[in-house]
Amino acid sequence: MRFETLSVFPEVFAPYLDASIMGRAQRQGILEFEAYDLRDWTHDRHRTVDDAPFGGGQGMLMKPGPIFEAVRDISGRGGGRPHVVFFSPCGTRYDEGVAERLSHLDRVLLVCGRYEGMDERAYTLADETLSLGDYVLTGGELAALVVIDSVVRLLPGALGDDMSARDESFSDGLLEYAQYTRPADYDGLRVPEVLLSGDHERVREWRRQSAIRRTAAWRPDLLEGAGLTPQEWELARSVIEERRGGVDHGEE
Amino acid sequence: MRFETLSVFPEVFAPYLDASIMGRAQRQGILEFEAYDLRDWTHDRHRTVDDAPFGGGQGMLMKPGPIFEAVRDISGRGGGRPHVVFFSPCGTRYDEGVAERLSHLDRVLLVCGRYEGMDERAYTLADETLSLGDYVLTGGELAALVVIDSVVRLLPGALGDDMSARDESFSDGLLEYAQYTRPADYDGLRVPEVLLSGDHERVREWRRQSAIRRTAAWRPDLLEGAGLTPQEWELARSVIEERRGGVDHGEE
Repeated sequence: MRFETLSVFPEVFAPYLDASIMGRAQRQGILEFEAYDLRDWTHDRHRTVDDAPFGGGQGMLMKPGPIFEAVRDISGRGGGRPHVVFFSPCGTRYDEGVAERLSHLDRVLLVCGRYEGMDERAYTLADETLSLGDYVLTGGELAALVVIDSVVRLLPGALGDDMSARDESFSDGLLEYAQYTRPADYDGLRVPEVLLSGDHERVREWRRQSAIRRTAAWRPDLLEGAGLTPQEWELARSVIEERRGGVDHGEE
Repeated sequence: MRFETLSVFPEVFAPYLDASIMGRAQRQGILEFEAYDLRDWTHDRHRTVDDAPFGGGQGMLMKPGPIFEAVRDISGRGGGRPHVVFFSPCGTRYDEGVAERLSHLDRVLLVCGRYEGMDERAYTLADETLSLGDYVLTGGELAALVVIDSVVRLLPGALGDDMSARDESFSDGLLEYAQYTRPADYDGLRVPEVLLSGDHERVREWRRQSAIRRTAAWRPDLLEGAGLTPQEWELARSVIEERRGGVDHGEE
């Protein structure tokens, strides 16, 4: 899969994408990456990409011209038009479902804003506008890295083990169950006995219940779509009621 | 304000935090940053930070030992215990309100997981657990960068202009109004006339309505908390009804 970014800080991507899992994905040919510099599509000596807003106000906006020229030019290069993504608080909320959908595309161009924002007309270039959450970043570069990281980890082979991307929060509609590793007793904090029992059926059952309890406690909004059995709904409801009652006795 | 990270990839932070607005904030003494390497708190020759999960399953979990030792050790250094933040899908959803709250702290330590997750007992070290959204990353490093970037931009002087951090989406409970810069006509795409009028009162009114229309269209869930007048509610409702009717005639 090919990711491209268009940004005034093209140099911030490689240090993350060349390291660790993303670096390995690039070396294995699972991820191809190119960072374009928006200033390459300016025509003045100062390579100006921003200008003052019409109607007054503070800060600078990104001009439409360089963005239009860059996106059209990049889209015409190489094999197949890219899926063009912009970022905006007005966009679709990014989640694992969007990541999964993007992971089936061949080529995605992520357009990263800076300064106070972007001339509204530039958004007409977007195939899709995404919002990462109800917070404001100094620019779209981190948003682009979040999208690349969360999509690439879903690509076959990227984690070195085809299954591990799926055994996670959100993949079955629930938060992930609590996990433990050695030692069984750390400074008095003990691992739940059942996980040490070697009884696979009981472990499986405990994990399912752990996932349901955690989801009921912290993300009850997810329960509706998680396909619970009537008995599992009863467990979820009891967790929700306990919490309403102000009783907090941990997870297990 | 001082941010610290604890991670097995301490080298991925500086390239972003030394550039652009974060770099300037560091040079101005607004942001102090230090990345700790979790492996410095291991005691074996291979500097092992992970182990297999109890109860079986794929992937590796981060062991509790190095995390406990590191957080306790780091917390005892320097001036004042840090506010310790972990990341988990079970955490509080990160938003501009959380960013604003964190921006009043002196010292924040962000603990970044990797591999399939972290031994559940490590979370007892957290003063606060945050979730960036319903998607999965290969590690907490990008989550930490998102938090640092969105908090530091709120610190006085960080944007070089004290007001600009506030004139944004979410700061008044609405999405930001549409913004335009020159040229007034780009390839047939025209800036709304009112913004060229020089009539400040009409511009102010147009912007308020633009913000309400955009919020009603894309984030009606935000309207309740935005303190709309009865007349503004009428505008919001008409946008919502238009969209329900499948009529889409743009923003203005």
